[in-house]
Amino acid sequence: MKIALSQINCTIGAFKANLERILSAYEEGARKGADIVVFPELALSGYPPQDLLERKEFLHAQDKAFNKILAFTKETGLILGHISRNPAPIGKQLMSSVSLLSAGKVLHTAHKRLLPTYDIFNETRYFEPGQSSVPVTFKGIRLGLTICEDIWTDQELCHECRYNIDPVEELVDQGIDVLINVSASPFHLGKLDLRLSLAKSITTKAGVPLLYCNAVGGQDCLVFDGNSLAVDKDGGLMAHLSAFKEDLGIVDLDNGRGEIRDIPETLPAQAVLALRLALKDYMNRCGFKRAVIGLSGGIDSSVTAAIAASTIGPEKVLGVIMPSRFTSKESVEDAIELSRNLGIRYEIIPIEEVFSAYLGSLAPVFKDTTQDVTEENLQARVRGNILMAISNKFGHLVLSTGNKSELAVGYCTLYGDLSGGFSLISDCPKTLVYEMARYINKKKEVIPERVLKKAPSAELRPDQKDEDDLPPYPVLDKVLKAYIEENKTIDEIIERGIPRATVERVVGMVIKNEYKRRQAPIGPRISRKALCCGRLWPVCHGFKT
Amino acid sequence: MKIALSQINCTIGAFKANLERILSAYEEGARKGADIVVFPELALSGYPPQDLLERKEFLHAQDKAFNKILAFTKETGLILGHISRNPAPIGKQLMSSVSLLSAGKVLHTAHKRLLPTYDIFNETRYFEPGQSSVPVTFKGIRLGLTICEDIWTDQELCHECRYNIDPVEELVDQGIDVLINVSASPFHLGKLDLRLSLAKSITTKAGVPLLYCNAVGGQDCLVFDGNSLAVDKDGGLMAHLSAFKEDLGIVDLDNGRGEIRDIPETLPAQAVLALRLALKDYMNRCGFKRAVIGLSGGIDSSVTAAIAASTIGPEKVLGVIMPSRFTSKESVEDAIELSRNLGIRYEIIPIEEVFSAYLGSLAPVFKDTTQDVTEENLQARVRGNILMAISNKFGHLVLSTGNKSELAVGYCTLYGDLSGGFSLISDCPKTLVYEMARYINKKKEVIPERVLKKAPSAELRPDQKDEDDLPPYPVLDKVLKAYIEENKTIDEIIERGIPRATVERVVGMVIKNEYKRRQAPIGPRISRKALCCGRLWPVCHGFKT
Repeated sequence: MKIALSQINCTIGAFKANLERILSAYEEGARKGADIVVFPELALSGYPPQDLLERKEFLHAQDKAFNKILAFTKETGLILGHISRNPAPIGKQLMSSVSLLSAGKVLHTAHKRLLPTYDIFNETRYFEPGQSSVPVTFKGIRLGLTICEDIWTDQELCHECRYNIDPVEELVDQGIDVLINVSASPFHLGKLDLRLSLAKSITTKAGVPLLYCNAVGGQDCLVFDGNSLAVDKDGGLMAHLSAFKEDLGIVDLDNGRGEIRDIPETLPAQAVLALRLALKDYMNRCGFKRAVIGLSGGIDSSVTAAIAASTIGPEKVLGVIMPSRFTSKESVEDAIELSRNLGIRYEIIPIEEVFSAYLGSLAPVFKDTTQDVTEENLQARVRGNILMAISNKFGHLVLSTGNKSELAVGYCTLYGDLSGGFSLISDCPKTLVYEMARYINKKKEVIPERVLKKAPSAELRPDQKDEDDLPPYPVLDKVLKAYIEENKTIDEIIERGIPRATVERVVGMVIKNEYKRRQAPIGPRISRKALCCGRLWPVCHGFKT
Repeated sequence: MKIALSQINCTIGAFKANLERILSAYEEGARKGADIVVFPELALSGYPPQDLLERKEFLHAQDKAFNKILAFTKETGLILGHISRNPAPIGKQLMSSVSLLSAGKVLHTAHKRLLPTYDIFNETRYFEPGQSSVPVTFKGIRLGLTICEDIWTDQELCHECRYNIDPVEELVDQGIDVLINVSASPFHLGKLDLRLSLAKSITTKAGVPLLYCNAVGGQDCLVFDGNSLAVDKDGGLMAHLSAFKEDLGIVDLDNGRGEIRDIPETLPAQAVLALRLALKDYMNRCGFKRAVIGLSGGIDSSVTAAIAASTIGPEKVLGVIMPSRFTSKESVEDAIELSRNLGIRYEIIPIEEVFSAYLGSLAPVFKDTTQDVTEENLQARVRGNILMAISNKFGHLVLSTGNKSELAVGYCTLYGDLSGGFSLISDCPKTLVYEMARYINKKKEVIPERVLKKAPSAELRPDQKDEDDLPPYPVLDKVLKAYIEENKTIDEIIERGIPRATVERVVGMVIKNEYKRRQAPIGPRISRKALCCGRLWPVCHGFKT
């Protein structure tokens, strides 16, 4: 039996487009000799539809599209994730389901049994879990159909997954020839290894091959990376489809062969590809053709501009250089050199005149006060306003350029550098931003070397350096990773060799700045715990660590 | 038996303060002759602690506080909602529990069985449900202990509550003398009637009295309104504690008597009290002493200022009047008159100079373009920046002044009028804002009558009126309520007598402006479906209604 894995990029609620994508991939799979073509979890509606699931017209539109697909199917099987109704009068009204269709008939439907409700997942908000898992025989082969979380029962690999049922075990106990999993599994750095370990652990334990079909695409904060897999019963890799793009690959269960693509191995390379996919889809789905970026001559805006230029084309990116009285000559030079290297258009709009006008207008109210962070924030806000004005006038998307380290400790200005529609590197710690810059520069120096070498500075007061206000970034990023991603306590972080005063100061800054993150633009999640989604903290609370 | 209901205002994670509050109310109840003092759901930790529940040190701190309370208890019983650990190796690691303590011993613990996961609730993210409900006998009386949602099984009253178990029925079947419910039940307009109906339905069906102890306080977007109740077995009201403030009242089960406070009956009165509580707690918990508000001379900023002045005192409120070339003389006069009526200080800071500086700086980039919404947004952003500069310089909280109608359709400017820490009337439709203004003016004209009479205008271009851009507010608010709060389809809304073109236009605006709401400040929820919490919509999607 030949099974095609079709990792497609579906847009939430774009039923017509999703339908066409599914049908054309189904035909492609059939043409290439597949007996079955497999699509991802909730492929028809897109994932995660969130509260659109509460809208009747959304469900009707899905059902209509489902029936069209059903009517279209011929002998080749089609396995598809979709929403179905819970027939029981109690419990949630919907279920997340996977069906096997062929020749106009639904041959089998399985419902998702393990509904993740942690981090970015909130599936019990919408779905009732399925109550059993039963194999289905198609063309003489016994298939076990599962959906995403259904196979994540290994607590070593997923700490949050403390489930008391094991759908895979149930299916294997009833006898299956192949385990199929349809997923919408979001990417984070390290997830590829995690999935491979999981697939090997499952197949060797169950003694059956696993075919894993994952979604691809950027959806708000989430990035689905594809990387669909086929692993044989001994844990050997039969197929590995593309990373971060649509793909269709056939696995021949009879000879254990399938396509194995080149997958970028380093984390900075994966991060850059993830951000490109996220940006492309955000812009397409929100209807933006062009982007505008404030270029400071620093590493964050340089990396953001480089990724944008390589994603949508340099001719569609506008850099805006907005020097102030505190901007060094070198910063402007570096921003211009970057623009030339990238081939993007740039404008220079000094902020001095507007900044002075603010100081003048505020002078009566500010008399007898001294300069402080107020004046620093004002400069950042003038820049934010200029970018937004350009966005309003020409329809460009403002890409904000803040990194995760800044956002975590609040080293950023609300309505200033936090302005924008999409915050491309907001889940990238500063140390990763440097690694991405080096990766981007690998073939050819795009980001001027001086940008990578100079000490980071916000240039909002004379001779300011980030390290005057923050611990050195390698230390800061260590604390942030331990605290935010690994949920370590202060004492546990100190045990890693970081002084108590530093840890307490950083954690205090993270807690205090929750209000800024609430108003920050969304951006792609590429870590195990992002700040823009999946982390629910109260703004007001009295907890002192 | 006498039971005290103690509706206290606890701050999330402020274990020392919460502990002291609980102990002093316990002593007060005992002094007044209570056999038991009842406290709300998760009273010790505050509700909802969200992802603080994932922090070990938070749980340790709670346990320490719990043990101190336990050691303090004497003969008088103490019933308290708290977090406990799930002893099983599977499932969520925590449970939401209620315990009866007396004389240093935990006499009984019940675990929350129905975990709401819809709208603003996400309790299955953290908690494992309890598996059984068992009565406990104290001083010869059989008590049935339940937590909040455990009694919300009536689908007529709660459509989302499609549960297959009924903890009340289980307790009643085992024989109880009184049903006790500890809650952290958030307010919305209409909730009081809903709770009373529920209490009557439960008690008459079960044939036992219900004592219902609710939390009080503002927590980010949520307002807990107190309004604790006691209802006898025939559905008669025995006690009704205060609305929107702490209270302790004793219910004598032997004679069916308890305190019944005056409760504000009208919706605008309840809304104003809810907003005052929310504002007071937000400011206290975030450490703000003073507030600053941009006064346009319009109804929204007038109502916001009036509520702020009556909450924190007029001497702590600063009004900032920021006229532009489009501001009418009347608007400035009205803002001044409002300030005088309220007794708040005001400053006039014209925005002309800064606005002109922006236009000048942008002129080279904007050459050959015509004026449009860009210039309107710029004015709003200059005002936002001025308010934020005052906030940064003097530590005042910026109260943003947008209403729910504007926020729903995006008739507001990101980083402009959407600037601020707390958006006081952001869940109040424009029509309710007028009702609140009339309520505020009832005793004495505080908001100038002209403000209530003139046509709403953003004054961002010559002779602009809101109704040039939007349907009349009574129509707009009808559509918004049906679409957002009641989840009605376009066809269902048209059936209510609103033209299709209007409905489609409004719904289109709501959908398109999700990105603005993602970056809007939080504000108190007073409706069944707020925009700042409990409504999870994707920013990017392709669903056309």
